[in-house]
Amino acid sequence: MAELPETEIAKLGEFGLIDRLTAGLEKHNGSTVTAVGDDAAVMQYGEDSDTRVLVTTDMLLEGVHFDLTYVPLKHLGYKAAVVNFSDIYAMNGTPRQITVGLGVSKRFTVEHLEALYSGIRLACEVYGVDLVGGDTTSSRAGLVISITCIGDAKASDVVHRSGAKDTDLICVSGDLGAAYMGLQLLEREKTASAGRSDFEPDFSGKEYLVERQLKPEARRDIVAGLAKAGITPTAMIDVSDGLSSELLHICKSSGTGCRVYEDRIPIDYQTAVMAEELNMNLVTAALNGGEDYELLFTVPLTAHDAVSAMPGVKVIGYITKPETGCALIGRNGEELPLKAQGFTHI
Amino acid sequence: MAELPETEIAKLGEFGLIDRLTAGLEKHNGSTVTAVGDDAAVMQYGEDSDTRVLVTTDMLLEGVHFDLTYVPLKHLGYKAAVVNFSDIYAMNGTPRQITVGLGVSKRFTVEHLEALYSGIRLACEVYGVDLVGGDTTSSRAGLVISITCIGDAKASDVVHRSGAKDTDLICVSGDLGAAYMGLQLLEREKTASAGRSDFEPDFSGKEYLVERQLKPEARRDIVAGLAKAGITPTAMIDVSDGLSSELLHICKSSGTGCRVYEDRIPIDYQTAVMAEELNMNLVTAALNGGEDYELLFTVPLTAHDAVSAMPGVKVIGYITKPETGCALIGRNGEELPLKAQGFTHI
Repeated sequence: MAELPETEIAKLGEFGLIDRLTAGLEKHNGSTVTAVGDDAAVMQYGEDSDTRVLVTTDMLLEGVHFDLTYVPLKHLGYKAAVVNFSDIYAMNGTPRQITVGLGVSKRFTVEHLEALYSGIRLACEVYGVDLVGGDTTSSRAGLVISITCIGDAKASDVVHRSGAKDTDLICVSGDLGAAYMGLQLLEREKTASAGRSDFEPDFSGKEYLVERQLKPEARRDIVAGLAKAGITPTAMIDVSDGLSSELLHICKSSGTGCRVYEDRIPIDYQTAVMAEELNMNLVTAALNGGEDYELLFTVPLTAHDAVSAMPGVKVIGYITKPETGCALIGRNGEELPLKAQGFTHI
Repeated sequence: MAELPETEIAKLGEFGLIDRLTAGLEKHNGSTVTAVGDDAAVMQYGEDSDTRVLVTTDMLLEGVHFDLTYVPLKHLGYKAAVVNFSDIYAMNGTPRQITVGLGVSKRFTVEHLEALYSGIRLACEVYGVDLVGGDTTSSRAGLVISITCIGDAKASDVVHRSGAKDTDLICVSGDLGAAYMGLQLLEREKTASAGRSDFEPDFSGKEYLVERQLKPEARRDIVAGLAKAGITPTAMIDVSDGLSSELLHICKSSGTGCRVYEDRIPIDYQTAVMAEELNMNLVTAALNGGEDYELLFTVPLTAHDAVSAMPGVKVIGYITKPETGCALIGRNGEELPLKAQGFTHI
């Protein structure tokens, strides 16, 4: 490689890097509606079409995103597909097609790939998505999975990160931090099992954490529930890198601040028990854990009653004017600035 | 990983593997028109839409598809984008958007990624394509590039691999085998330079081969030329794995045989010189070399004059009934069965 000035990627972080690499991009096609900066890009094919086509892509690498010592290939396939569906739901859309790129090293057999594909195919069946193409190639270093998902939504239904407004309510589905705690648990059992062939991992009472880590689901039900309740969120994102990081994305894109109440953050009982066992700060884990694949969205204040009546949705705070910044309100009313400690793979 | 019966992937080959992994796929969405089995999948968004949306994906891995000792990052970015555009052109479509997935190991700096992206962005500018999204993550083992391209075509313009008919003419653009010879040359110079800091590679008189390997172009001009001449090919594919392999794809998909004349295969002078230098069979290299990114297509016999008048297109044979098989007709009239020796990365 050529000699170049050296700026460490870690210095910029993933989002700083993307900003730098995609700065000043020009648009060549009328079919491109919005590009970088949301969970999915938005396209319009056909001049008068009311349909918007959505596209998102994710790359998963062995040793970075997953550890095959404890991740079954079928689960991995399922998860790899579902996390892409989640990005389409986060645009208030419906996933329709995926393509699957695979890089496979020599230790993988046809049966291994069938196991992986059985998970991808199961996810496609469950979510009604078609597997339409792919590329399979050899790899020198483990397994590489790259999935691209295409979806659609009516033009008026598409939700971006940038639409949150002062006084909007901040809502989140499900509970947070469980997938992260599941990962800690799996890593702990892996360490404990090192060199012992008779070892049986102990997940009793913590099955929910393991499931949230190994077999997450995308919140199709929440998107359907919002439609049924007649609510179009003003902004939405899926929680893949932790609540703090995602909320800061919404506020930055929308040009707003926010307040989130610590005691309103939904946390499962098993998550709390595990945090105590590991002597970790529970709120930190819930704010920054990552891989929750819940939906974080904002709705106008007028939707308060409708959104409060939705099962599996909790109002956790509100959007403010930008000058007040982004903060967490602690149990004693103190304000702590929200930071994107994040859960980043770069 | 779980213990499973072991079938080596090499036993099936890339295409056998894909057949096995995608067998019996069901279709869940009306927007999916055709899936696996072409250069790109075909979708229709909007019930009455005359526009077909095309999608294709490619994965490139360091040490398998490229060697950064002699491939400049900017060229690599350009090529990674262009090979995807080529798949869309092979459907007789126009590439419109790409997403870029990158896995990056620690030895890469921000400036390295800027060089890579400058190539991707240049390709987008030259071909009028929009970069709309991506995913950047860390990698433990070198550089991983996964690009997905979305394009479009009028419904009546889409060309599949499966439409070739008995007596159709087989045509190919440009010339074949040059990119493969460029690779041989670059590898030779790499070996010669090992351990020598003062080494200057000698490419004089062979610049074309190096350019074909490092900076291929997609044949947008041929797609435009066909449209201008009023020709819609009956079948089309891009030559990425070698002429033999691609022709066998068309014949298998179309349920036909074929005859190709050895002395009609277009080969550049530099390719021939290099084959002689390396003591390689020239026709074998041209048939199986790979990475040509030319277009291979079939047209009805009635289009003979129109297609013969197109610059950069050569008629190299004709489609036959399936029972006569697929064969190369040698310079002395002898028939040799066509084999997909291929240029495969798996």
